[in-house]
Amino acid sequence: MTLARNVAAIDLGSNSFHMVVAKVVDQDLQLVSRHKQRVRLADGLDDHKNLDHASMERGLECLAMFAERLKGFDVDNVRIAATHTLRQASNAHVFIERAREVLPYPIEIIPGEEEARLIYLGVAHTQIQSDTKLVIDIGGGSTEMIIGTGFDAKLLNSKQMGCVSYSNAYFSNGKLSKKNFAKASLATQQRLESISSKYRKHGWDIALGSSGTIKAVREVLIGLGYDDGRITLKRLDKLIDALCQWSTIDEIELDGLTAERKPVFAAGVAILHAIVKDLRIDTLHFSEAALREGLLYEMEDRFKRSDIRMRTTENLAHKHRVDLEHAESVNQTAMHLLNQVDAELGISKKTELVDLLQWAALLHEVGLSISLQAFHRHSAYILRHTNMPGFNQEQQQVLSTLVRFQRKALKLHEMEPFVLFKRKHILTLIKILRLAIVLNGQRNDEPVPKLSVSIDKECWTLSCADSHWLEENKLLQADLVTEQAYWQNADWALNIESLEQTV
Amino acid sequence: MTLARNVAAIDLGSNSFHMVVAKVVDQDLQLVSRHKQRVRLADGLDDHKNLDHASMERGLECLAMFAERLKGFDVDNVRIAATHTLRQASNAHVFIERAREVLPYPIEIIPGEEEARLIYLGVAHTQIQSDTKLVIDIGGGSTEMIIGTGFDAKLLNSKQMGCVSYSNAYFSNGKLSKKNFAKASLATQQRLESISSKYRKHGWDIALGSSGTIKAVREVLIGLGYDDGRITLKRLDKLIDALCQWSTIDEIELDGLTAERKPVFAAGVAILHAIVKDLRIDTLHFSEAALREGLLYEMEDRFKRSDIRMRTTENLAHKHRVDLEHAESVNQTAMHLLNQVDAELGISKKTELVDLLQWAALLHEVGLSISLQAFHRHSAYILRHTNMPGFNQEQQQVLSTLVRFQRKALKLHEMEPFVLFKRKHILTLIKILRLAIVLNGQRNDEPVPKLSVSIDKECWTLSCADSHWLEENKLLQADLVTEQAYWQNADWALNIESLEQTV
Repeated sequence: MTLARNVAAIDLGSNSFHMVVAKVVDQDLQLVSRHKQRVRLADGLDDHKNLDHASMERGLECLAMFAERLKGFDVDNVRIAATHTLRQASNAHVFIERAREVLPYPIEIIPGEEEARLIYLGVAHTQIQSDTKLVIDIGGGSTEMIIGTGFDAKLLNSKQMGCVSYSNAYFSNGKLSKKNFAKASLATQQRLESISSKYRKHGWDIALGSSGTIKAVREVLIGLGYDDGRITLKRLDKLIDALCQWSTIDEIELDGLTAERKPVFAAGVAILHAIVKDLRIDTLHFSEAALREGLLYEMEDRFKRSDIRMRTTENLAHKHRVDLEHAESVNQTAMHLLNQVDAELGISKKTELVDLLQWAALLHEVGLSISLQAFHRHSAYILRHTNMPGFNQEQQQVLSTLVRFQRKALKLHEMEPFVLFKRKHILTLIKILRLAIVLNGQRNDEPVPKLSVSIDKECWTLSCADSHWLEENKLLQADLVTEQAYWQNADWALNIESLEQTV
Repeated sequence: MTLARNVAAIDLGSNSFHMVVAKVVDQDLQLVSRHKQRVRLADGLDDHKNLDHASMERGLECLAMFAERLKGFDVDNVRIAATHTLRQASNAHVFIERAREVLPYPIEIIPGEEEARLIYLGVAHTQIQSDTKLVIDIGGGSTEMIIGTGFDAKLLNSKQMGCVSYSNAYFSNGKLSKKNFAKASLATQQRLESISSKYRKHGWDIALGSSGTIKAVREVLIGLGYDDGRITLKRLDKLIDALCQWSTIDEIELDGLTAERKPVFAAGVAILHAIVKDLRIDTLHFSEAALREGLLYEMEDRFKRSDIRMRTTENLAHKHRVDLEHAESVNQTAMHLLNQVDAELGISKKTELVDLLQWAALLHEVGLSISLQAFHRHSAYILRHTNMPGFNQEQQQVLSTLVRFQRKALKLHEMEPFVLFKRKHILTLIKILRLAIVLNGQRNDEPVPKLSVSIDKECWTLSCADSHWLEENKLLQADLVTEQAYWQNADWALNIESLEQTV
């Protein structure tokens, strides 16, 4: 008998934090437990997008509780994703650093589209594969809408509207009135405007809703006598009528509605009503699975080596017509260099970093699709802003940083700080990538000589077994001297052995 | 007998300013006169990229002389393009404003690739159309390399190396030595590295060089006895040998070399030598036509309504998979709005502005290819940095600005100043484009109602003949109210007539 592996996923939402723990059984996941705490993180965000002390404390307290449950879990078996509120918070890094003391696993802030993709993945794993699915997830700060088939999300969007933010914006007086509902509904429609006709045109076989807001609506509808729990426009109309019987939110008393949900329920209903109406959803079913299940299933997929990120980077390279042959040469040189100095650096054990270096090698020239002039900046812009399924915000930032500093002067003051990664490691990856690019600079078919690289007290030395070779390749030699000057200006040291006499 | 139209083109180069005047005869151009003055603008650029007083004065003096010749020329018949040094100079706007007082025609700073395209066009007009041509133009601050067939440039690049900058960098000691030549040559090769194999692979039927450096080399070679004036690697080798007979640049005495050319000749030879060697050019012929002829021919083409810019914008829209139907709706609404207020604004007489508005309408969503989130910023980034044949730097800036401010908050402090255009006009175009986009916001097939727009003392008023229509279109109404708030925050006034009661 082998020991079953346990995995856990945590979702740090704007309204609640959730954790699911599952057991890997025969290539499948068996849910073991779910945990939830209403942290109301979004409430702590002030006008300057600063997360206040109290909300951080609530969050940390919840994480400490989760930590108890996760004792003994290997770091590879836990994945934590933060969404809207931490995407917004300008001091998110403070929270993440403090969280790490309580819960020693990396917290990834994921972009909105990535959240959408993971929600879809979580839902898709629990539904009939062949159906085309529309998935709606109304959170505290953002709402995700996805259409997909099988495990592939085809349309995916994340919009900045949620039950917490809309409560503050449209029900701040605590009044339940048709007018407040109409305002919230209209605001929702405005946000849907750019995408709804595209969604309607695409169509779907089944519409599914996930997460707290939709779950609460379903339960209240059951409480109202709609035993099948299906959500339709008519029923939502009636629900709004029912809610407007009371004049304030505090007074609401509905079977199935918890005290915790009550303050944000009306806003959630308003958003859902507008979505169901606008997308012309006939019937919305509920899916228990959502973001955290998406995280779990993807963790499992990564173990199976079908990393979605590989597909993402390949698609991007294709879209921007990257010279794949050249990218592969750079990649191979980079791996060759890394292997030689790895005893010194200990990077290769961190497979994450090696993966990122390889993807940066693949994508370093995407910016050429904008212009040759300063293309490293264009590459960085694209990798920073484009939708990259499978990447969290900081991984995307690493790729963007590596390609930004692939060539030309090392204006390292432009580099932004990292939370999950160590600056030291990123700088090392930049060094390796730059050298790999210089060595492949001539873009001809002649093989790059197997230069050897070594590190001694921060000083890197390149040397060529065949010293004649470098002498005869004046251009590469000149490029290395130029590169050496760039390093020097950044207070890095690079020796080039056969050049020692001339430098 | 009809009066022949005269046209003129001026090229403000880093080393010299040139003017050509031509007569339009039977759909063709007959050159009337050429003027040239060595202004050495590049010499006036200091380490902080500021153009000094003396060099500005030299430039203005030359322009005053050109102005005499152009007396009575209509503004449509003169085109002035500035290249490398004014691209670089951080105070270029000062020079351009002062120049306008001397010479009342707009000076356009053109991007490097645009310079390359125009040089090619000038050369192509004087050569056999069917040949594939390689064109090399070594200027004072930049060198352009183009391969094309007919009038279409296929590969085009502009590299920051020129006879003035390389004289300063590699011959600053005034010494003529093999070592200095080798250094300059190697630096050239480094700059060619990223493109040369692509050029070699593409190939050409005939190689042509244009402009002063190559003309001077040709004349010196003739002086050395090579009567056919053809440039080959062997002859350049010999030329360098010949130059190295003298120990300083001042001492050079060669038949065919003018005193003006002498100070920058050696650097020009070094660059040309490296290019001929690296691209493996067998024989380089000389073309009298260059940038200024390109400007002339294109001016004529524009009259013939075959505006290259139309093709550029269409290609860009295609490349970024713009929703053309939607773009066309926005464009039509924009034109409809413009027509109604044009009596007030007087924009439509400025066809340039109308063209730019239409192209902005076509291209406003190119940024969606990067991401939906903040796509207006991505659109602006692309239009600012991508290579747009036919557009000068400031026209590109106008397009970028219009799409930047197409939606969301009007952070107008982010808008950069214009030299050729009036800020007032650009703001007006932004207003029209925004309204056209809002009115087409729902992206459905239903026709946008013919709203009428009027302006009274800077205040814009939108009104709908069918007031019911707007009442029934709550979403559009809400979008207009949101838009109204954006205007208000920018201190702009927008009235929406049927809303007056509710606002």
